[in-house]
Amino acid sequence: MTGTFYGLGVGPGPYGLLPVTALEILQTADLIYAPRSRVSPDSVALAALDGLPFPRDRVREVEFLMDGDDTRIGEHYAALAHEIAAHQRAGRSVAYLTIGDAMTYSTLGYLVAALTREAPDLPRRVFPGVTSYATAAALTGFSLGEGKERVLILPCPDDMAALRADILVHDVVALMKVGRRMADVLALLQELGIAEHCALAHRLGLDGEVVLPSLAPAPDPGRLGYLSVVLIRREAPRRFA
Amino acid sequence: MTGTFYGLGVGPGPYGLLPVTALEILQTADLIYAPRSRVSPDSVALAALDGLPFPRDRVREVEFLMDGDDTRIGEHYAALAHEIAAHQRAGRSVAYLTIGDAMTYSTLGYLVAALTREAPDLPRRVFPGVTSYATAAALTGFSLGEGKERVLILPCPDDMAALRADILVHDVVALMKVGRRMADVLALLQELGIAEHCALAHRLGLDGEVVLPSLAPAPDPGRLGYLSVVLIRREAPRRFA
Repeated sequence: MTGTFYGLGVGPGPYGLLPVTALEILQTADLIYAPRSRVSPDSVALAALDGLPFPRDRVREVEFLMDGDDTRIGEHYAALAHEIAAHQRAGRSVAYLTIGDAMTYSTLGYLVAALTREAPDLPRRVFPGVTSYATAAALTGFSLGEGKERVLILPCPDDMAALRADILVHDVVALMKVGRRMADVLALLQELGIAEHCALAHRLGLDGEVVLPSLAPAPDPGRLGYLSVVLIRREAPRRFA
Repeated sequence: MTGTFYGLGVGPGPYGLLPVTALEILQTADLIYAPRSRVSPDSVALAALDGLPFPRDRVREVEFLMDGDDTRIGEHYAALAHEIAAHQRAGRSVAYLTIGDAMTYSTLGYLVAALTREAPDLPRRVFPGVTSYATAAALTGFSLGEGKERVLILPCPDDMAALRADILVHDVVALMKVGRRMADVLALLQELGIAEHCALAHRLGLDGEVVLPSLAPAPDPGRLGYLSVVLIRREAPRRFA
């Protein structure tokens, strides 16, 4: 009997946002791979499972690779897929954690592609999760689309003129991976006169969390960049009388 | 003691995609409002909770209003907010179910705005959920953004020229509420030569579910429109060698 590979979106932060079904998978998997960034001592995906009941002794942390050239990324995920497929062939089920949703700006896509090449015959299932931008929206009462509205999800560009143009032709913009551009983004929102109805979430559920339902007055951008999402509306939301 | 209002995104279909924390809230709430469309005999939100343990006798179905003019929608949600606030003041906690994510093209936004006007002093919390498009992506292995990619979420326009223009300037398009335009959408994807790497999910987890990881050859659009999402990529996905 071969084991199944399960890709699990665990949601952002330890809020218990893991879907019920994904927790059930986690409780029965033989091995749980928890990716960890090279710049962080801990797995953020694992931290998102704080307080939930599942066997910790089955976890193995693996470093994930997001940057680098295509060849290097390809080799990294091919090696990981080779190792996971061997476990599956030995009958062990393998869960792989991914922060937020499974297929949204996630390294899981690379791994699934590598597994498909390595072992197209082995069973795989991916479970979706809750995104950081949906969590930020829930916490701040920010609507991610009403009626015919158009919502753009994008990693923050370096060029603020490009971001300005995107804001002007979409109703809602959810800005991921803001990083060191936070000061420029905040300045742009003030300049456009829309900061009051824009929102921000930083380190959701983690130490140093900041959740702001309005960006007027502008917060200090100092430490707000990493693990932040900014929610932008071109116009103030409709309020039914 | 006043009761708390909880807005809960329950995810699409009975896949157990409700977040763990939302299920805990559901198990303790005094009243559970389950919105039901006027054209449907059952609550799709309630169907998404099939098989999950919570007290069914606390559920009350309410008709929701998505269409109509602003005045009518405003009156509808003001009346609902008035009723819910009275329960909260009597010490009862109230959960309100919403299919998919809580703030993504959801009527919950209207209700939260009405509650804020009716009773700004009463406690409210909104929990995010899993969207239909993230679920469709997980089931079909479709990546919702990699690296610097831009992802557009939008309700399907009537005008296929507008949709074509949107596909050409975004890397990924998740098309909601396709309805009777399904045949036109499928024809456009064939014409653009990208149908092979586009995906579709219809009635996720419900009777008559259809999940297609490729739209070439084109499926029969006949009954695929309602409760469908189409995932579109302008170019074939990168595959690391």
